[in-house]
Amino acid sequence: MNKEDKIFKIRHSLAHLLAMAVLDFDPKVKVTIGPVIDNGFYYDFDFSDGKTPTEKDLKTFQKTIKKLINKKLDFERKEVSEKEAREIFKDNPYKLELIDEIVNDGQKISIYSTGDFVDLCSGPHIENTKEIDAEAFEINKMAGAYWRGDEKNKMLTRIYGLAFENAAALEEHKKKMAEAAERDHRKISKEMNLYTFSELVGAGLPLFTPKGTAIRNALKNRLFEISARYDMQEVTIPHLAKKKLYEISGHAAKFSDELIKVVSHYDEFVLKPVNCPHHTQIYASIPRSYRDLPVRLMESTMQYRDEMPGEISGLTRVRSITCDDGHIFCTPEQVKNEVKSIAKIIEEFYTDIGLFGSHWVSLSTSDKKHPEKYIGDPETWKKSEQILKEISEELNLGAKTMEGEAALYGPKIDYMFKDSLGREWQLATIQLDFNMPKRFGLEYTDKDGQKKPPVMIHRAILGSYERFLAILIEHFAGNFPFWIAPVQVKILPVGETHNEKALELLAEFKKRKIRAEIDDSNDGFGKKVRKAKIEKVPYFVVIGDKEIAEDKFTLESRDKGNIGMLDLEKLVEDLK
Amino acid sequence: MNKEDKIFKIRHSLAHLLAMAVLDFDPKVKVTIGPVIDNGFYYDFDFSDGKTPTEKDLKTFQKTIKKLINKKLDFERKEVSEKEAREIFKDNPYKLELIDEIVNDGQKISIYSTGDFVDLCSGPHIENTKEIDAEAFEINKMAGAYWRGDEKNKMLTRIYGLAFENAAALEEHKKKMAEAAERDHRKISKEMNLYTFSELVGAGLPLFTPKGTAIRNALKNRLFEISARYDMQEVTIPHLAKKKLYEISGHAAKFSDELIKVVSHYDEFVLKPVNCPHHTQIYASIPRSYRDLPVRLMESTMQYRDEMPGEISGLTRVRSITCDDGHIFCTPEQVKNEVKSIAKIIEEFYTDIGLFGSHWVSLSTSDKKHPEKYIGDPETWKKSEQILKEISEELNLGAKTMEGEAALYGPKIDYMFKDSLGREWQLATIQLDFNMPKRFGLEYTDKDGQKKPPVMIHRAILGSYERFLAILIEHFAGNFPFWIAPVQVKILPVGETHNEKALELLAEFKKRKIRAEIDDSNDGFGKKVRKAKIEKVPYFVVIGDKEIAEDKFTLESRDKGNIGMLDLEKLVEDLK
Repeated sequence: MNKEDKIFKIRHSLAHLLAMAVLDFDPKVKVTIGPVIDNGFYYDFDFSDGKTPTEKDLKTFQKTIKKLINKKLDFERKEVSEKEAREIFKDNPYKLELIDEIVNDGQKISIYSTGDFVDLCSGPHIENTKEIDAEAFEINKMAGAYWRGDEKNKMLTRIYGLAFENAAALEEHKKKMAEAAERDHRKISKEMNLYTFSELVGAGLPLFTPKGTAIRNALKNRLFEISARYDMQEVTIPHLAKKKLYEISGHAAKFSDELIKVVSHYDEFVLKPVNCPHHTQIYASIPRSYRDLPVRLMESTMQYRDEMPGEISGLTRVRSITCDDGHIFCTPEQVKNEVKSIAKIIEEFYTDIGLFGSHWVSLSTSDKKHPEKYIGDPETWKKSEQILKEISEELNLGAKTMEGEAALYGPKIDYMFKDSLGREWQLATIQLDFNMPKRFGLEYTDKDGQKKPPVMIHRAILGSYERFLAILIEHFAGNFPFWIAPVQVKILPVGETHNEKALELLAEFKKRKIRAEIDDSNDGFGKKVRKAKIEKVPYFVVIGDKEIAEDKFTLESRDKGNIGMLDLEKLVEDLK
Repeated sequence: MNKEDKIFKIRHSLAHLLAMAVLDFDPKVKVTIGPVIDNGFYYDFDFSDGKTPTEKDLKTFQKTIKKLINKKLDFERKEVSEKEAREIFKDNPYKLELIDEIVNDGQKISIYSTGDFVDLCSGPHIENTKEIDAEAFEINKMAGAYWRGDEKNKMLTRIYGLAFENAAALEEHKKKMAEAAERDHRKISKEMNLYTFSELVGAGLPLFTPKGTAIRNALKNRLFEISARYDMQEVTIPHLAKKKLYEISGHAAKFSDELIKVVSHYDEFVLKPVNCPHHTQIYASIPRSYRDLPVRLMESTMQYRDEMPGEISGLTRVRSITCDDGHIFCTPEQVKNEVKSIAKIIEEFYTDIGLFGSHWVSLSTSDKKHPEKYIGDPETWKKSEQILKEISEELNLGAKTMEGEAALYGPKIDYMFKDSLGREWQLATIQLDFNMPKRFGLEYTDKDGQKKPPVMIHRAILGSYERFLAILIEHFAGNFPFWIAPVQVKILPVGETHNEKALELLAEFKKRKIRAEIDDSNDGFGKKVRKAKIEKVPYFVVIGDKEIAEDKFTLESRDKGNIGMLDLEKLVEDLK
């Protein structure tokens, strides 16, 4: 959305109309700022001298705005002097503060008038309220917000509105939002009992239940199985290191304040915010020759970030982040082959997930205007960006170049996947690094007997398990494919007399490593089926008189309905 | 070893003779204390006024002591007054400090004379040096040690001696020590490249290489596979918690100073020193009915301890401890069955390891004289100790009762396993806990509709992976059984022309999840075989002209020698 777009102007103008409606409700309110946001706008108000609105007043504002639109009011822009501006807004300390800033920045001061309402505003706006579709906006929520986002300032009331060019677009958006709310991973995880938080453990530190852990393990096992075919090897590192490790890697300078200190009586540690420096130390532990390269290390390990409590949300923003992290140390000649292998792992894994094909690839390069944001010399950067460009061409990745999006230590290839709601997520990444090996003095003895630094490739296939899980839950709305589902089959004995047979089947499933559960509660059969559906199990097996008589089992699929009566071997075969 | 044992008296008397020999070497030395230890004795000396001995002087001391023994000197005990004692030791500040303490404790002061040497000593001693076998002791090493073990005090020189009743016993011990040194897990791990330390990461924080991780995974997978058959379920927790969690559990009071603080900008955390409190929070996350119990949670997760740098050693004493931890929440009626299941898991796992049978079981109860060392009321303690006693009888565990060895929160059953050097290790443990569930307000709804606290059973099968790995390495001297070995088969092409066939075989092994490596270096065949033997791989496969001609492979076993020429299917079958 660009400032000159029609929809931007409509949203911005609606913010002014909202201020007018609120002034109509409470003439003593102090209006502050009202910007455009994704899908709409908001306006922040200080109600401390008058009456604070409640949720039900939002409807009143909606009605008032509609009336204003129908009045076909003009938006008139005027440039004023500092003195004039100060006179107009003399009773509003917020606007006076804004005027100070505009003056300090040496900018011109403009005001916009609509009816009898005048706002300090740089625009742009529509010309007349008739350009707004009165059925295509909705004043939809209210929240507290500090003046200028600073918690030292006064708490204001923020009123939000949605706005689109026409009513159909608004409806479409509301439908999507309702669907997203329905698929919210926090809601579904609670229904499926996947993880929990405890105040005693702390915000942003999820504890994964057996079911949540089953999903994590399914993902991890699949990922490691594919990676092992490409000779990646698992390693195990602790969650601490001395700060010195990150001073050498460059992370301490970059993250400084975000490093979490660990206070031992004997040593000063920090919680690891990344895993690459630890992996360099495994590489460095023995002498390496060109014959030993590539050394391909990977693991799934928790790293920690000092997120603000207010920013923490479900699994999307956590403090304990389980990283699927891998690092390859190789010769410059081996880089291409290694990147290709990683691209193949990404393709295999996301094909299994069902997301491959709905993606695009970005080639993130450094911001040439700000070389100080990166470590390493420009020559090395140029070389590594060139290599990635060649590879992405050879692999036909169709990568779009995104300048300024590179990692601290090198350029990268990122994969963006689209979920079932059409949202895009940056997930897999391949990053080239000629810098860190030098900083840690890593080396190998080449054919010519010379010691040389290896190239380091950082790669993540699914990124963080927590974020990936949140995305998967919302993508599938909890209806996981068989191989991921925490409970793959639910066994439903029709009545108590069928429990024994059900327990026998459970034992058979366990032997065959199928994740199964039994519902041998006293609930009626109808309720058992309803419960199994709420739990979103991919399959359930019914055992009643008929099944026992024929020594078979009725298999029902969540997605395909009744499959029929099968004997044990056929049942297991069908499931797998 | 008891104070009245002959060997205790011999060792104690040799400490005095060592002091005499050292005084002979440097008359200005200040003697301090000389206690008996396992297998011998030591004496701490302050050489700051005279000449400090070097390693080669140990031989001199040995000779001097031999001469003293041959002089058939008497040990004479005499009780003296405080004044007399102060007069005798007036030039020795260490002895004067000891006299202060004896007087403060209201004890009698005794001295022992041997020849012209007089020592402040409570005894007992032998009567005459002729009771010592002059061939059954050895002054064997020297080290620095702070006076009274406190680093604020002066650094003294500690001289150690080994001593036994006869020369054969000394020889036997030295042989065992040499064997233990040969099997030292630090030495073997280095040869096998299992883990590494980095100064940048920190002492006591091992980084496990792909090979070390392969062993960890083999153990973990076997343990989880067995445990899953007994319906244990894996969970996943973070490595931090608020301190409050441990204040409720009682660990904060018990460990206070040993908790490692984590300094976030927003919250105060500690690194988890144990896992039980986190697991209680997973139990507490949803309402539980008697029908849901037992809830059986387990995981392998790192916990942290603030070990002193000087106490850290290899994998036996580390700061990052990967705990095989499990907690079962059940009704009082279910306790027996659950403990029996755990006992079966222990039996299965240690049978696979090859240690089951070489063990004994202890039933650790509380120290009745110091109830303040534990949490919970005496009545509950009595009840839970009674339950464990009954179970250990029903299971024929032959448990020895060890008073005062209980855990903080309840009595426990410990399994002690003997390794191939005859050393005993406490490994598996089953601990009964009626206290922690109450402290966390855990509950379940019983059949009668009442809310009741569950019983909590803490269990570890292998304990800490780090310590267990150290014990296994030394037990097997690195010659791991097939299922644990980091590299299970090494493929040795005789010459370069056989490499292609070797690579094909490697691919076959990979497909069948056999951990294999290939030695396609330029080394001669003899050297390849020697290298494979040093790496202690359980099997190696030879591929030469004959093998290629017959499309077979020659299999050699580390333990059984040549097995013969086999085709691929037979080869894989034999290995598995």
